[in-house]
Amino acid sequence: MSAPLFSVPAKSWVEIPDESDFSLHNLPYAVARLPKGGSIVVVAVGNNALNLSRLFKKGYFPGLNANKNPFRSTSLNSFIALGRPAWTYVRQRILDVLDEQSDELKNRKDVEKFLIHQQLLTFLLPVNIGNYTDFYSSMEHASNVGKMFRPDGDALLPNWKHIPVGYHGRASSIVVSGYPIRRPKGQTLPDGTDQPVFGPCRLLDFELEMAFIVGQPNTMGDSVSVDRAEEHIFGMTIFNDWSARDIQKWEYVPLGPFLAKNFASSMSPWVVTMDALQPFRTEAPAQHPEVLPYLKEKQRGTYDIQLFVDLKPGQHRPVTICRSNFKYLYWTMAQQLAHHTVGGCNMQVGDVCASGTISGPTEDSFGSMLELSWKGTKPLVLEGGIERKFLQDGDVVVMRAFCEKEGIRVGFGSVETEILPAH
Amino acid sequence: MSAPLFSVPAKSWVEIPDESDFSLHNLPYAVARLPKGGSIVVVAVGNNALNLSRLFKKGYFPGLNANKNPFRSTSLNSFIALGRPAWTYVRQRILDVLDEQSDELKNRKDVEKFLIHQQLLTFLLPVNIGNYTDFYSSMEHASNVGKMFRPDGDALLPNWKHIPVGYHGRASSIVVSGYPIRRPKGQTLPDGTDQPVFGPCRLLDFELEMAFIVGQPNTMGDSVSVDRAEEHIFGMTIFNDWSARDIQKWEYVPLGPFLAKNFASSMSPWVVTMDALQPFRTEAPAQHPEVLPYLKEKQRGTYDIQLFVDLKPGQHRPVTICRSNFKYLYWTMAQQLAHHTVGGCNMQVGDVCASGTISGPTEDSFGSMLELSWKGTKPLVLEGGIERKFLQDGDVVVMRAFCEKEGIRVGFGSVETEILPAH
Repeated sequence: MSAPLFSVPAKSWVEIPDESDFSLHNLPYAVARLPKGGSIVVVAVGNNALNLSRLFKKGYFPGLNANKNPFRSTSLNSFIALGRPAWTYVRQRILDVLDEQSDELKNRKDVEKFLIHQQLLTFLLPVNIGNYTDFYSSMEHASNVGKMFRPDGDALLPNWKHIPVGYHGRASSIVVSGYPIRRPKGQTLPDGTDQPVFGPCRLLDFELEMAFIVGQPNTMGDSVSVDRAEEHIFGMTIFNDWSARDIQKWEYVPLGPFLAKNFASSMSPWVVTMDALQPFRTEAPAQHPEVLPYLKEKQRGTYDIQLFVDLKPGQHRPVTICRSNFKYLYWTMAQQLAHHTVGGCNMQVGDVCASGTISGPTEDSFGSMLELSWKGTKPLVLEGGIERKFLQDGDVVVMRAFCEKEGIRVGFGSVETEILPAH
Repeated sequence: MSAPLFSVPAKSWVEIPDESDFSLHNLPYAVARLPKGGSIVVVAVGNNALNLSRLFKKGYFPGLNANKNPFRSTSLNSFIALGRPAWTYVRQRILDVLDEQSDELKNRKDVEKFLIHQQLLTFLLPVNIGNYTDFYSSMEHASNVGKMFRPDGDALLPNWKHIPVGYHGRASSIVVSGYPIRRPKGQTLPDGTDQPVFGPCRLLDFELEMAFIVGQPNTMGDSVSVDRAEEHIFGMTIFNDWSARDIQKWEYVPLGPFLAKNFASSMSPWVVTMDALQPFRTEAPAQHPEVLPYLKEKQRGTYDIQLFVDLKPGQHRPVTICRSNFKYLYWTMAQQLAHHTVGGCNMQVGDVCASGTISGPTEDSFGSMLELSWKGTKPLVLEGGIERKFLQDGDVVVMRAFCEKEGIRVGFGSVETEILPAH
């Protein structure tokens, strides 16, 4: 994808703190409920959110070819469905409106009324998700799992370096940051027995992931070429793929994880667009052996996105337990999407594809408790001597992500979730 | 579920052929596009379809608590979401209207105008499917697969008799009967090599399944008890879970089938309600070992639904290649739904759960080419000496299903699909 040329103003008349995830270079989208009711699409500007519905109604998007107000909605889907020309146009218009030097400065008083502090908003899931797919694209994560569960075999399965392995997940139970999740119950097989038991999951885990949101559909029976694939992506979020390890172990052969995953996944409210991520494009890991032609990219690349997991154990202070990076992933989003559609599977606007756990090469970059505590054999020691092998009720998991380069910061905010005890 | 007491009239003023799937006892729902445009909900009556939207507008459902016409729609979801009292009420009203002895006979001329021959309609997918799950509930099918692929091991995996094994599938590529499907391309691993190749699937297969449609949602974090589970089901359809066996073999370890399934699934247009199926309730297979309490049914039961697969090879005559029955399934729909939700997964109106391939005990009751041709080692010999191990381009697969007992017939119609060559 060649990056559109956006001229980002040097300064906005809206105050943006230096350390803000939401600089003028970012302008991520979210969907929020207003204090007095009604759901709208907003764009983050520093600590504020800009109400695009009001901007639309005031005629700030004269070039937008929309019959209805696409920003008066409970999801981004209507806006995304307008297509890339609309995404580009709206982004440029917002930059114009926020520019301190803008000719529209006379309208500042007007637009100021459309700014609302983010803390006054209730964020919703940003998209109406038709289908959700989870990949398994971190070599470090797949190798760690292999070493733990198949100590005598190869760390990677034979197909792993040929296929961006993925599986279909449950869309209905994806929730937004702040929504507490309940420890699931299910069947597990106690070690050394052949009689499963039923009860609350004992090995509850997070998985540090990023997700992309499909912006351009493809027709059933057609496929998306790997070199055009990023054009089909609208943007990205942080994604926490909650996992019940003990349930998964007993259920997943031969058809994959089911109840171990479908009780909940959590997503950050802000969707950072691919346009905003272009300055952070970087090399993706080299691939050996060579991949099949349909997965071979002319200009292979990924994004340098720093990732963090903070664990807040009950009433204690949060501790950063993982520092990873999106760029470690062996398979790129373009390869994931090309593979997903190569058999003719139709992707729809709002579909979500998550990356799989993003682990890095070092022990402090592993993206799950399973790996950080090495299957529970090396408990994490947190502040005050508190230990964790897996997650406990009352724990809060916070995932954060941002890009930073040459003084430009483009962040994703966070996805923050408390664990409630099983019913 | 205790069956509501519907008084089915002895005869209707609408002509219904004796052999029709769509007797007065049935009254299945579908969504169709009218010849002059517009999509509506219809009910089958013999060879005709009754336009419920027109009936609604004419005031035939005065007790229906709906702000908008739920039958003027591209899916059944709005009607289903009105809940069981609405389903019961509408069914009874339709029976009243169709009754030859009805007091409303004076309205026959009125209602006659709302009947349209089914051949004039274009049927759509009956529901807007939020999420699709596929189970694996036939012991005969799972055993056959085990015998073929693990000849030295147990036919069934250790978890199979404890868990109604299932996995999440792709909702976007589910299409209605009549929609041709294209042979997928994908990666496969030729025997005896370690280098995958890319190309059209060579082992394309059908899977004879039935699906149920969720009619009553449950909240995330809550579960549906096995004894209440059938109350959450609106009705059933025939379901063809297309499968690319060679793609599946290479991709499915460890996270399950992905491209092997997500290129297409096919569904019959008519949804037969659970109310219509009550006369055909029958015993389900005994379960040994005993299942865990959350799967134990007070009144275990299933439905006696006769199933057929016809294969029409290219220009040749169709041949029935499989005769099976829904009642063979080891796990009931109630158990599937109780298991699906036991960890708190939220089901939504319109969600589809398919049964998995329904194979019976005899060789002519196997529900896939994989089993019928025993992995291609015993080609099926059709009329004129034509042979098939798996499906070829131009083949048409027709699945049919009906219940019949004491002169009462309740049928599902068919799902009929042609296979197009790969792009």
